[in-house]
Amino acid sequence: MFELLKTDFHTKARLGKLSTAHGVVETPVFMPVGTQASVKALDPRELLEMGTQIILGNTYHLNIRPGLDIIRAAGGLHRFMNWQLPILTDSGGFQVFSLAKIRKIKTHGVEFNSHIDGSPLFLGPKEAMEIQRVLGSDIAMVFDECPPHDAPAREQKLAVERTIRWARECREQPRGEGQHVFGIVQGGTNAALREECAKALVAMDFDGYAIGGVSVGEPEPEMLKAIELTEPFLPAHQARYAMGLGTPAQMLELIARGVDMFDCVLPTRVARNGTAITRRGAYGLKGGGYKADFRPIEEGCECFACKHFTRAYLRHLLNVNEILGLRMVSVHNSHLYLKLMADVRTNLAAGTFADFYREFIANYVPSKKVLDARKAASTER
Amino acid sequence: MFELLKTDFHTKARLGKLSTAHGVVETPVFMPVGTQASVKALDPRELLEMGTQIILGNTYHLNIRPGLDIIRAAGGLHRFMNWQLPILTDSGGFQVFSLAKIRKIKTHGVEFNSHIDGSPLFLGPKEAMEIQRVLGSDIAMVFDECPPHDAPAREQKLAVERTIRWARECREQPRGEGQHVFGIVQGGTNAALREECAKALVAMDFDGYAIGGVSVGEPEPEMLKAIELTEPFLPAHQARYAMGLGTPAQMLELIARGVDMFDCVLPTRVARNGTAITRRGAYGLKGGGYKADFRPIEEGCECFACKHFTRAYLRHLLNVNEILGLRMVSVHNSHLYLKLMADVRTNLAAGTFADFYREFIANYVPSKKVLDARKAASTER
Repeated sequence: MFELLKTDFHTKARLGKLSTAHGVVETPVFMPVGTQASVKALDPRELLEMGTQIILGNTYHLNIRPGLDIIRAAGGLHRFMNWQLPILTDSGGFQVFSLAKIRKIKTHGVEFNSHIDGSPLFLGPKEAMEIQRVLGSDIAMVFDECPPHDAPAREQKLAVERTIRWARECREQPRGEGQHVFGIVQGGTNAALREECAKALVAMDFDGYAIGGVSVGEPEPEMLKAIELTEPFLPAHQARYAMGLGTPAQMLELIARGVDMFDCVLPTRVARNGTAITRRGAYGLKGGGYKADFRPIEEGCECFACKHFTRAYLRHLLNVNEILGLRMVSVHNSHLYLKLMADVRTNLAAGTFADFYREFIANYVPSKKVLDARKAASTER
Repeated sequence: MFELLKTDFHTKARLGKLSTAHGVVETPVFMPVGTQASVKALDPRELLEMGTQIILGNTYHLNIRPGLDIIRAAGGLHRFMNWQLPILTDSGGFQVFSLAKIRKIKTHGVEFNSHIDGSPLFLGPKEAMEIQRVLGSDIAMVFDECPPHDAPAREQKLAVERTIRWARECREQPRGEGQHVFGIVQGGTNAALREECAKALVAMDFDGYAIGGVSVGEPEPEMLKAIELTEPFLPAHQARYAMGLGTPAQMLELIARGVDMFDCVLPTRVARNGTAITRRGAYGLKGGGYKADFRPIEEGCECFACKHFTRAYLRHLLNVNEILGLRMVSVHNSHLYLKLMADVRTNLAAGTFADFYREFIANYVPSKKVLDARKAASTER
């Protein structure tokens, strides 16, 4: 499924190619998040124009609304939402443990109440795989337990044990035609747990591996540590996916640590509050300083928003609650993420990634606002 | 400015052509409403794709936010919002009399408080024309007094007197280069007042004439009566514009009565609540009946929404508050209005308008929900 085309000489960064039933994905890749069968505020044409190769969908949310019957009747998620390129679906594990009110964790899954109407539901490895089979995603994720970053050691250990057991159950379920399945490594920042979990999953021979238990509110150094503790145990010839991450600078840090795939609600989430992300950091477009600023959101940017509109106009739209304002900031931010990945791939191919990486990090000023939003986003993806 | 190309043999419908500084507009025409410098939820590309020829802007709203200084610095409204085709601006008279808290009506305008922050403002003929000159609209409207439809006779008479006096003051103000100015006829459903107002305005030789005091909450028969009482006094060789109207069927009725131009917030307003407008009437897409309905919003429709998405998908998006849902219904509804006008023009050119009109009205079932929304919209346009 994954072809490793090149590994950077100075870092662990990798250039690769993922083959799926709906086409090839070049890595490193950013996957816009379409939790409820829509990447918030964007339409498929806009996603294609900005270079989207693959998007996310979510088992937990789609199973509740519109419900599996509707998506089955539509002929799967691709047809339901009219998206022809690859889709990766998360298993719902993260949402069950972060959004839902859990009633009981059982041997083969979790009894919980819907966060929408409180109705009793059950999700486990069998159910999650069955739902993803009906969704027809190109890449399905195993059902895992994702504990909070500050969970006590005992709870982290239990989560790893369940995650391994459930991964094995997922592995045994029937799949959709051509559907790939990725394992998810848990274990927090505990070196032994990360190693144990990674090795157990790799022994099951999944099509790729995700690093979970990150983007759950932890400080950035812990997040990087979790990645560093896991990566050495993942096979080089398979794709690695850091779930729910991150800021542009964080993604570069993770690419340099050997990660190939990313998803994050950050670009669209902060856009809806008027925060624009650029290669030098983020800024709030609503500020009075932009009221007569007739430059684009980011000079030199080729996105639809920057080609057509000024900061002054978008600031006005955001301040009077016109939908076009948050739409265009969503376009810009998402485009930035995708273009950054394209530039990373170009630099990897040219052998100049290390310079690109160093320069990017030097120029990027992490904004507290964006980091806070990432924290908030982590409970809601 | 206006060229009357053809008048229908069986009705008063007219085929025409409006020439403006930003291009030619074929009439009958529907003008999407961009009150705050954005047609709600839509971007300029979408507007062009659906055949938009001219849009509306609003003096009252734009003067409050972003404020005239910003738009002046941007080089006018066209450049501020990046819209290259014609723009018509309403004078703010309607909003002062419907939205704002009026403190005092004076000889040369109205003292009122902003509906946003209560700050004291003054708008009269001189101010309205000056603002529209800075906005740089292709068609500016005179500053009029628009009383409620149930205002007593004495108040209607006073409003007509003021409207005439203020129109004369507007006529004397400097204009932007190539800017046309339309008069607005008031007078409610009083035949004598409509005649008096129309004749007085026509004597001032404006570039076109609007029929105001409609779409202010009146029942449909009163609205039609107001139009019928006014139209005979308007010159045949100039454009006639029915302000703030209406449903598709109402627009056809008005075209048959000699009206050339329309604007209405209805298509985008009801879209945001999930109501789709079709050639046979309107329906609420959120209804459970559409949950597994994989047809487009309207069969045979060529809009972006109907070419890409199903009712089932859009219903899901609307029900989970995904912005793409209301975006796509806004696209469909606005496209319907514009396509209807294009079909009217084609039928007028072919001499088949009367049949088209009769058939359309016979097939269109007016929906109470849409009519109610029109009523609500009339106070907020």
